[in-house]
Amino acid sequence: MRGVLDIPEELIEIQQQVAGGLVEVEQIFAQQLASDLLAVDAMCEHVERYRGKMLRPTLVMLCGAASSPDSKVGRSHAIAGAVCEMVHMATLVHDDVLDEAEIRRRGETLNQLRGNEMAVILGDYLIASAYELCSSLDSPIPSRIVGNASAVMCTGELLQLHNRDNLSLDETTYFEILERKTAALIGASCELGALCTLGFDQQKSDVVVGLRAFGKRVGVAFQIQDDVLDLTGTQEVVGKSVGKDLEKGKLTYPLIHHLANADAEQRGRSLEMIRAAASGSANETGELVDAIRATGSIDAAQKMAKSLIGDAKNELTAVEDSPSKAMLMVLADAVVQRSH
Amino acid sequence: MRGVLDIPEELIEIQQQVAGGLVEVEQIFAQQLASDLLAVDAMCEHVERYRGKMLRPTLVMLCGAASSPDSKVGRSHAIAGAVCEMVHMATLVHDDVLDEAEIRRRGETLNQLRGNEMAVILGDYLIASAYELCSSLDSPIPSRIVGNASAVMCTGELLQLHNRDNLSLDETTYFEILERKTAALIGASCELGALCTLGFDQQKSDVVVGLRAFGKRVGVAFQIQDDVLDLTGTQEVVGKSVGKDLEKGKLTYPLIHHLANADAEQRGRSLEMIRAAASGSANETGELVDAIRATGSIDAAQKMAKSLIGDAKNELTAVEDSPSKAMLMVLADAVVQRSH
Repeated sequence: MRGVLDIPEELIEIQQQVAGGLVEVEQIFAQQLASDLLAVDAMCEHVERYRGKMLRPTLVMLCGAASSPDSKVGRSHAIAGAVCEMVHMATLVHDDVLDEAEIRRRGETLNQLRGNEMAVILGDYLIASAYELCSSLDSPIPSRIVGNASAVMCTGELLQLHNRDNLSLDETTYFEILERKTAALIGASCELGALCTLGFDQQKSDVVVGLRAFGKRVGVAFQIQDDVLDLTGTQEVVGKSVGKDLEKGKLTYPLIHHLANADAEQRGRSLEMIRAAASGSANETGELVDAIRATGSIDAAQKMAKSLIGDAKNELTAVEDSPSKAMLMVLADAVVQRSH
Repeated sequence: MRGVLDIPEELIEIQQQVAGGLVEVEQIFAQQLASDLLAVDAMCEHVERYRGKMLRPTLVMLCGAASSPDSKVGRSHAIAGAVCEMVHMATLVHDDVLDEAEIRRRGETLNQLRGNEMAVILGDYLIASAYELCSSLDSPIPSRIVGNASAVMCTGELLQLHNRDNLSLDETTYFEILERKTAALIGASCELGALCTLGFDQQKSDVVVGLRAFGKRVGVAFQIQDDVLDLTGTQEVVGKSVGKDLEKGKLTYPLIHHLANADAEQRGRSLEMIRAAASGSANETGELVDAIRATGSIDAAQKMAKSLIGDAKNELTAVEDSPSKAMLMVLADAVVQRSH
């Protein structure tokens, strides 16, 4: 939540509850990764650089609170939150292996190779630790949910890899990638939060199904916004290097929309610029981004993301009104309004 | 078991039971990895090249049978066996990322980079699928065992990476690496097999503790034998490329023993040859292997491995005599007698 949200007065209390929960998440997180080996502790220090907005633990906590407004969120929610954040971080770490491969294409040093090996091991350690932690929830159901979400995430990564440099990627495949790569774990976070409150045998209850569907739609919207920021943001504001998708030959919603809506001449010119960016021979993507704007493709992406947030909110009909539910709505809006 | 063992007459029946169990393991394995995405199925075909001796599922089955000779091994043992094999295969796949990094040091093609990314994703998919499958065992205990073993394996890999090119690696650290990297999962396989028979609340029973300790010692012996074969084997017999440890700057038992027992002059010459092999400037390690043999270091490694197998068998006092227990003993002996 850290600065992402402008919180209305009446939601301050729930916001503070969540903040307290996140402190517990961070403690559990650090405790689970601690080791008797100095080398492991040194490796885990690198994890710090992957710290983010804690979106997944926040959703665990809010969905936990929203699924039964009378009960409090507790230790199990904090554990589930730490598990989801750990799985998420593992994917960031392993994404870096892929990213570093890209940098290496342009001829880099041996040092980065060792960094690469470390990234593989660190990612594996995070995944394994997440599963070990998850098994402390005293039911195999959360392990099943987290295992399944992780496997689905891998298939999304694979689908993305298969479509690298595919300049005729269609919208259907793009959404398929997003649903797997990003939405599966965010949906699982919401489901876990609700189950920690209602009991792990409640997977089919309307509230749990609704919150999970909410999370999945928010997840897709989140990734579209990420893709927009990768094109339009600046490194200082976004907090990570931008233009990565183009470098990696990844077609995202704004580009797919642009190529479908540009006239033949512009389309040819844009394809040329996309190829140049993907091969590392373009230093600057300003002209391409201008062209994407000119076909209204950034606006179209943001409209799509907002419409998904509308759909997400509609999934919450079975969830009783409460400050937590209101906060989920605020958070959902923030996901597509954020500039970082 | 495939050809690893010479089976005494009286053990044929249990051997056939295990063989039947392994068929079920393979079915569960394939089923768990199957996907509705063509790209995933194509990726999983690569898994075939990592197929091995099925040591871990064999141990699951034999320990399952040995822990209560009157009961039959069943579906849960096959599931646990598939889980252990999948986790093991994931580590092989990710090891290849490290290996390919090495090949790339000497200047390889872009194609291998893509293979690298695929290996990261495939390994992650195997781990995630293993955890998902494990959660079908209807208790969080197996997930805890497998999660913990995987995390410990990562710390072993990390310790190994930290000690790459450390030519003064001592025996204590070498054994620490082996216990984590190899023995943890083999111990877990034995434990899981016993728990599938006796019930997941029996972790502290003498039989389970004994079988787990047996597995851990067999695991260390197994890895020592692997390290010996990497030095003395030929690619045709071992079935994988040899001399890898030297190339990767990994000091193993025979080398540690050799450096501790060679005279000053030989020691200097050997260190030179080890450095040359690690930097890729040696084409041939015959002279080094001869020197290692001359200090009796291959024999010492094999003696150490055999002594560990003796210790392993001594861990089985709480386990009632049965053909399965006898088979465990035969298998333990085979681990250090194998040439592949």
